[in-house]
Parts: sequence; structure tokens; C-alpha cells
Amino acid sequence: MLLEAVYHRPKLNWSYAYDRETVHLRLRAKRDDLTEAYAFAGDKYMWDQSKELVPMSKFASDDLFDYWQCAVKPPLRRLKYGFLLKDGQTEIWMTENDFSGERPATPERLFEYPFINPADIFHVPEWVKDTVFYQIFPERFANGDPGNDPEGVLPWGGKPERDNFFGGDLQGVIDHLDHLSELGVTGIYFTPVFEATTNHKYDTADYMKIDPHFGDIDTVKRLVKACHDRGIRVLFDAVFNHSGKTFAPFVDVMEKGEASRYKDWFSVRQFPLEVKDGVPSYDTFAFEPLMPKLNTDNPEVKEYLLNVAEFWIKEVGIDGWRLDVADEVDHRFWREFRNTVKTANPDAYILGEIWHESSPWLQGDQFDAVMNYPFTDAVLDYVVHGKLDAKGFADVIGKQLARYPQQASEVAFNLLDSHDTPRLLTLCEGDKRKMKLAALFQFTYGGTPCIYYGDEIGLDGELDPGCRKCMEWDRDKQDQDLFAFYRKLIAVRKELAPLRTGSISFLIAEEGGSKLAYERKLGRDSVLVLLNNYDASQTLEVPAAGQAWRDAMGGQAYETEGGKLAVKLPAYGYAVLKREN
Amino acid sequence: MLLEAVYHRPKLNWSYAYDRETVHLRLRAKRDDLTEAYAFAGDKYMWDQSKELVPMSKFASDDLFDYWQCAVKPPLRRLKYGFLLKDGQTEIWMTENDFSGERPATPERLFEYPFINPADIFHVPEWVKDTVFYQIFPERFANGDPGNDPEGVLPWGGKPERDNFFGGDLQGVIDHLDHLSELGVTGIYFTPVFEATTNHKYDTADYMKIDPHFGDIDTVKRLVKACHDRGIRVLFDAVFNHSGKTFAPFVDVMEKGEASRYKDWFSVRQFPLEVKDGVPSYDTFAFEPLMPKLNTDNPEVKEYLLNVAEFWIKEVGIDGWRLDVADEVDHRFWREFRNTVKTANPDAYILGEIWHESSPWLQGDQFDAVMNYPFTDAVLDYVVHGKLDAKGFADVIGKQLARYPQQASEVAFNLLDSHDTPRLLTLCEGDKRKMKLAALFQFTYGGTPCIYYGDEIGLDGELDPGCRKCMEWDRDKQDQDLFAFYRKLIAVRKELAPLRTGSISFLIAEEGGSKLAYERKLGRDSVLVLLNNYDASQTLEVPAAGQAWRDAMGGQAYETEGGKLAVKLPAYGYAVLKREN
Repeated sequence: MLLEAVYHRPKLNWSYAYDRETVHLRLRAKRDDLTEAYAFAGDKYMWDQSKELVPMSKFASDDLFDYWQCAVKPPLRRLKYGFLLKDGQTEIWMTENDFSGERPATPERLFEYPFINPADIFHVPEWVKDTVFYQIFPERFANGDPGNDPEGVLPWGGKPERDNFFGGDLQGVIDHLDHLSELGVTGIYFTPVFEATTNHKYDTADYMKIDPHFGDIDTVKRLVKACHDRGIRVLFDAVFNHSGKTFAPFVDVMEKGEASRYKDWFSVRQFPLEVKDGVPSYDTFAFEPLMPKLNTDNPEVKEYLLNVAEFWIKEVGIDGWRLDVADEVDHRFWREFRNTVKTANPDAYILGEIWHESSPWLQGDQFDAVMNYPFTDAVLDYVVHGKLDAKGFADVIGKQLARYPQQASEVAFNLLDSHDTPRLLTLCEGDKRKMKLAALFQFTYGGTPCIYYGDEIGLDGELDPGCRKCMEWDRDKQDQDLFAFYRKLIAVRKELAPLRTGSISFLIAEEGGSKLAYERKLGRDSVLVLLNNYDASQTLEVPAAGQAWRDAMGGQAYETEGGKLAVKLPAYGYAVLKREN
Repeated sequence: MLLEAVYHRPKLNWSYAYDRETVHLRLRAKRDDLTEAYAFAGDKYMWDQSKELVPMSKFASDDLFDYWQCAVKPPLRRLKYGFLLKDGQTEIWMTENDFSGERPATPERLFEYPFINPADIFHVPEWVKDTVFYQIFPERFANGDPGNDPEGVLPWGGKPERDNFFGGDLQGVIDHLDHLSELGVTGIYFTPVFEATTNHKYDTADYMKIDPHFGDIDTVKRLVKACHDRGIRVLFDAVFNHSGKTFAPFVDVMEKGEASRYKDWFSVRQFPLEVKDGVPSYDTFAFEPLMPKLNTDNPEVKEYLLNVAEFWIKEVGIDGWRLDVADEVDHRFWREFRNTVKTANPDAYILGEIWHESSPWLQGDQFDAVMNYPFTDAVLDYVVHGKLDAKGFADVIGKQLARYPQQASEVAFNLLDSHDTPRLLTLCEGDKRKMKLAALFQFTYGGTPCIYYGDEIGLDGELDPGCRKCMEWDRDKQDQDLFAFYRKLIAVRKELAPLRTGSISFLIAEEGGSKLAYERKLGRDSVLVLLNNYDASQTLEVPAAGQAWRDAMGGQAYETEGGKLAVKLPAYGYAVLKREN
């Protein structure tokens, strides 16, 4: 047994309350090293009468490790625990203190989950698990009201540049909600809609005002109501790391320097405000002088921003916030933000923009989810870049699942592209088969998938500004095949609950392999998903119960033989199999 | 290179802001596996111009692992980083994503410390590092005012029982502050002083009132002032996990049941309140019906307790709180508690009672320190129980240092006994040589040492009630040799700064060995500490610079020969060597 590989640490993703009664205990060991693992758990104040061995099962694996898990329901909500590890030859007991061949005689030096306190439980909004998101960049989605177009607006469909405008607005979104409903979307994430100077609006001038080129508060109220009437939830984008250069307090600091009463709203390294050799003398997002970093350590700033967060929930009824550059803002602020937001709407979804590992924000006290770019990377590395084989892909997915408490994975925001990346179709070099395969994984995996506006009708484009093209509304120019594919995919996801909230286990994921098969299981229901990430046809053989199965995507029927299903998939083909009997 | 042993995860004890400019980066690897380790770090927004290799050094080791660390000062407070690991044969680059033989070409998949935000920095009170604490159990320390004795008080010095009283009070402490000053104590931790029914007062009746048998608020004010005048800081004990059965809100619930307006102040599993088969129908501390658990999820309860926390700081000027059963109270409460306390007194010390690994509370948002019982265990296992040899002991100390951010180790509350354990002298079966050896480690190690009242004059006693004997004030019955030892030990600790805040490295700690030597280093100053944990004399040979050294404890002079010092120590002897030239 490789003891150096065995890992457990109390709390975080290793021992956490899943609900008011249940603690999940997890343990890491070298891959394929253990044959059995148990938690040895009981009440710390009556150890002898309550101690028990609870079998653990492998719930994920990566290239180096297996991850074991069990659920324990301590009647008095208190837990002492250790682990018993077996590898077929030796038995090792693990305590907080050490590894030993002997069972711990007393509970003193075991690990502890001292008490399941309701305040510490990570509650995520249930609705997110069943939602299909759609990301809208309002300036480029639809122009519903030419009356509010900015000066110098260009004809719809022109070449996007970093600083040009096409007149997209919120009335345009209202006008095209039928498109979203037809597609099956049930959530919209809007990039910023507050007054700002740029087309992307990430340089907020006024957090309390809708950008006049997008509409006004009444437009937003109509928009949110129209969405809600259709069962579509709405997320706004909170740009709280930095403001824009035209934000009144910053204007005041620029004008009055150290004499400004707002000087502590920002983090000025040296007055006067200036940019030397490309480096502003005040903290900014990246090196962007347009985006001065807000000082969230200042109680006035905190109060202002928390007010903003509350206002748009209470006043127009948005269902959550996406948080821009969330990792560069302090944790204390985000904890207060969560309190404010969840008090205003306990069901609100809090989604941080973080591109890297996000454990420090996903413990239940800050965000519900992050923009899951590591997921994006994994899918693209497998389907598009060829950097991962099937085993490598399954390993990365396993590693990501093991990183976070289960709740976080249940509402992970899984995207394949956004306004900050090249478009999926472009990444696939126009190969729609690859695009569909990537989306197929996205929609048959847990969490909540998000489509970047236009992907569903074949919009392409490189990194900003290319990926921020005007939406194509001419049906003849839309890719109807792609649209039908996405529509079907969403319908299948809605039909089959295991695709949304089932467990995942990989059935085929071989080293050097391109075939991938996995089972999504929820209670007694099971869905088998098969992918052929190869430019020639391949047959996938997977163990399957029962007799008859049907591909929910293509409709094709399959019969088991000898407890197995053999499914021939075309190049980059896929099947989503549900059991018929 | 054993990759399964290599560990890093962003934040926690692995990457944290040490101050406003500095990030500590840490990495774990198999013991003795790496020859070199480097952080590969730079600004995420100008990676190419800023990236650099920063050498790491081994700062601790345990039985399985080495822990490497470096400090990085990113000019713009933002950091992307990976690691370069060398073992003499291979070079491995570690990113958030994977291990590779190739240097990462771009920073995208590196680890990230996104921004040093002041709000997230773990600030600990500086004074604690230089403080020597003394724990007082007021009912048994001194009876300064017989006028407030409880009914049925017994003559001072009788046999302690779980429910008897000897009349100790706060005037008694005031009367004996000379004893503490003579000893050299600079901090007192008082077990609870608020009104309660028991002799230990852990069943609070009224958090706003000093127990009448101990005195009143004026006594406390005089006490705190007298302490401050002598440079002694004062900690009170906050029993916020549970109240007492006579706490007015609980009395109301007992009387009125579900109709009580205080019913949500507690966590009642079933009305009426009763105890069946030893299990109360409401949450309690352990199974103690006298101690109903407070519901800190209730805003009223929170407000009440935070008021209490603030009141005693503002009104009588205490310097911090020790928090009883701190691990069973929710984290959200403790975060608010920290805000309240540090707002009232930014220099307050927050000390949680937690017996096990305490990482979840020691990240800068909750406690400054915990009662360091794992330290107690390590010292006792080595000196008293013979469960650890010198190497095992050094390994456990190394593991404990690696667990927490450096700030937490700097103010760790290192005790060898308390009102909740047998007395040190009793654990040593009366062998004062062992007792002194244990204390010698305690006082020549980082953190803040605490003496349990009476240990310094030879009080003994088994677990409660035995360890809660009356203090011995008859000089003839006090162990003056022990007193002189502790006095000297404290004086030496005060004299030699490296003993308080220096780094530690073990020079002798062999498998099966009883000899222990370590260096405490602070800037250019270095102190060598030598212990002979053996019942016969032994000579310890350690590398040492310079020519002449002197034992600060015994006064003996030593000269180096060939860059080494040879020091002969008697059975259970010790030396604390400072360089003379």
C-alpha cells in the first residue's frame, strides 16, 4: 500500500455536510492500490456504543489516484472517524495522527467532523440542476429598438471590432425569446447591462442604471417578466472587481486626487493617477486603465456594492449573479455578498468567474459555482486538440469531480465557449461532427450546460472581437441542422433525469483510445452514453442490463446479448441509450 | 520521483499571504526524494516579462514527507505559479493540471494566487508571540474575599470533588499577582468567571454578570487594571457552544415548552424537554443536560453572544477570548465573532478550544490559535509515554508546523496540561526531571507557552476533579526547586528572541534515539537546544559556529572544536546554548 498517496483532511471536499443529516467522507489512495476502504465512525461522546465500519466506494479516479467516498448519518450530528484500508494483503488504520496496523483503541486521535451546523451546509439552488443556460452578449444579440442605438452604429452583421457598435439591446432579447423557448433554454446569463462606455460594458459607469443603449429599468422589468413567464431564469453580470473609468467616484478621484472623498474607494499606489510604461499608478484589472480596481475592504464600497446586488434582485427579480474576475476580490466581501443575495432570494444562483481551481470559493460560504473552464479545457483537449486520449479525458473529469463537494459539481456551470474564448465551431475548424461530440458530452454530464448565443445556429469566430459577432436572424443563413441537434440534445437532457443528476462511471476509457462510454445512474434509472472520437466508424461494446435499449438522440433500437450492448457508431458518432425493457 | 507524494493546493497552508506583500508557497514531496525545488512564478497579466524561478527550501519534515517553502513578493500582488522539482535525475514541472517533463509554455494552466487582498490576510496579535500564559481556574486559585464564599464552602486545600467549593475568587487573584510577576507570567487565561451553578462555571447562567462567588464587575475591572499595570494580558473564557440550564432563555423554554419565545435559541429535537436513557431530547454539550447547545443560526442568539463578546472587551478591557468547545459552533458565527472582537480591539487574541486538526479555523477569518493539544500529545508521547523516539517526535512537530499558515504557528497556544487533563507532574509519575524536560521543550519552541496554575510549585492531580486542586500558598509546601526552574526558563525565553520567533531545525533526532537537538534561528542569532530524554548521561555533539557558547539555563560554558560542540548532559538533562563569541 502506498501510504504517501493516501490523503484525507477534515472539511473542504474531504468531509463535508451534504445536508442536515449527512456527512460525506472521502479518501484518496494510489490508483488501483486498495481493494476495500471503510470509514470507522461514531459519536465522539459515546464512541464504544456507536462506532461502526462504513464501506466506501470508489466514486472517481484520475491518472494517479482513486477517490473513495461514503455517506454517514450520525444521529446526533457529531462524528469522530478514521479509515480502514485494505489492499488484499495488509490492513492499515488511518487516524489524524498516523497509519497503523492496529485498530485505534480509543477515539482520541481520530479525525473529527465536530457538528453538522445548519449555517455551514452548502445549499445550492435546486433549479440550476435542471436548467439549460444560454449566454447573451446584448450588444450583439438583437436590435429591438433602433431608437436607442449609439451614435455611429453600424449595420447589423458587420465585422465586430473591439470598439464598434451594432445596436443590440434588451428589447431585441424580448423580441427573440421564442427562439430560446424553441431551443429549450431555461436560463439566460447576460454579460453586463449597466451603463458603460464599451460595447461589452465591463467598465461600469453606473451600477444602478441600465445602459441607455440597451434600454432602461422598465425594459429590464419587462424582459425578466417575459423570461419568467416562459420558465426562463435570468442572471446578471456583477462587475465588482473594478469599475469603469467613468464611474462617478473614480471621476472624482481623477479630478481631485488625494483630496477626493472617494480616494479610498480604489487602491491608488501613487498620486497623481497616471499610466507609466503601460502600468497604471493605481490597481486595475490587468493593466487596463479603463478598469480601476475597487477597494472592497472599504465599508462604504462594500455597502454600495451589496446594495447593488440586492437592488436588482428585489427590484427586477433577477435569479442570480455572475461575478466578473471573482477571484481577485476578497473572500470576506464574497461571504457578505452571499448573505445579502441569499437573504434577498434564497434560491439565487451565485456564479463566479474563475478559470482555475476554485475550492477556496466553493465551500458553501461564497459561490454556488464557477465558470467551469477546466471542464472546457478537458473537453477541448479530448475532442478538438487531441491532447487527451479517452483515459486521459476520464481522468481529468474524475480529478475535477474529486476536487469539490458534491453540491458544487451538481450546479457546475459547464461551458464550451464564451465571449472570452474562440467559438466552439471555430475551435473545431468548422467540423460540426466534433462540435456536436463536444456538446454531447456537455449535455450528458452533470452540472448546468451553457450555450454561447449563436453557437446553436453555426456562428463562428476567433477570440474577441471575432467571437462577438452579431447574431444571425436570417433563417436561411442559420445552420438548421445544428439548431435541430441542440434542440434534440436539450430535449433529451430534459427527458432523462440521470443525465442531469445521476452519478457518472466510465465504462470505456482506454489508454490511447478514442472510444468513450459512461453510465449516468440515478436510483434505478440508468443512461449509457457512447462517443466515438475518431474519424472512422467504431463499435463500442458495453455491459448493460435488460434486453432492449434505444438511442434517445437518433432513435435507433439495440438489444443486449450476453449482458452486453454492441453499438456501431460512425466517425464522431454518439448514442445516448435508455433502457426500454 | 514519487509523484503520488507531491502535493500542493492553492490557499490554505499551501499558498497564503503572509503580509501585504508576501505570499508563502509550499509544496510537499516524499521525504528525501527531492534535491531541489523551485516555484516558477510571475504576474498573470505579464507572464513573459515577470516569470522567475524562486528556490524553495525544506522547512519541515515528517515521517513520510518533506515540506518545501519559499516567499514571493509579487509587485502587483498577483501571482501565477507552478513548481520545478528535481531529484538529481529527472526534472518535473508541476502545474494545476498535471506533471510534465516540459516547462509550461504558457501560464494558463498554472496555479493561481489571484490577488493579495488585505481583507484576507491572517493578522495575529504580535504581543502573543512574546507572552507567557498562566491558566487560572478561579475557584481553586485563591480565596481573597471570604465574604463571597458559596454556602457549604470547604476549608482551602481539601480534596477536590466534581461538585465541591473552596471559595476561590477574583480578589484572590489580585492578591497573588506578585506570585505571577515573580514567575514572569505576562498573560492569564481564566476559565469562566460568569455566573453559573458549578465550580467550573462552564454552565453559564448569565453572560453579563460575574459569578457573585467570584466578585462583581468592579472586582474584574480592578483585576484587569492590576494585570495591565504589571504587563499581564487577560483572556476570558467564552462558553458559546452551550449555555447553562439556569440561563434565563433556557429556563423559559423548560417552563413554557414550544410556547416559549426562546424555543429557537436552542436546538430541541423533541418537546417536552427530557432525558431518556441518558440522551436529552435537545442538543447539548456531550450528553450533559446541564448544558443545552445554543442555536447560533438564530440571529437573536448571534446578536446576544456578539454583544457579550464586545461588552467585556470594551467595558473591562480584556485582551481576548478563549472559546469553549469551539469546533461544535458554526464557522459563520465565528467569522462574525472575529469581526466583532477585532473591531472592538484589533489586538485581541482569539483562542479556540479544539483538540484535533484545526485548519478550518486557522485561515485568518476565525481564530488566531487553538489550544494546541496535538502539541501536548507529541511532547508527552516523547518525554512521558515513550511512544515516540526522537525522530518520531521531530516528525510530529514537523507535521504540525506544515499544517498551518506560519502566522498560526507563531501564536499557537502550547500547553502541557489544563483543567481538562491530568497534571503534568502526575503524568510524569512525580519524576520532576521528565517534567522539566517537557517544559524545556515547551519554552524553547515557537508559539506561546502556558503553565497551568500550580504546576510551577509542584501541584499534582489526576483528571478532573484531581487536577483542580486548591493552589498551595504555603511557601514551605511549595516546590521551590520547580518554581526556580520555571522562573529561569521564562527568563531565558524572554532573553533569547530566537526561542520565541526563530525558525526551527532539528540537528539530532534519530530513529530509536533519545537525544534531541535543534536550532532556533532568527536573523543572525541562533540558539541551540539539547535534550537528553534518557535515564543515563549522554553526550550530544552538534555542529556550531564560532568558538564559545554558554548554557543559558545552567550557566556552563562550552567551546567548539572542529566546528562542533560536545555537550554531556545528565539523565533527562538539557542545555539552551547561546553563542558568546
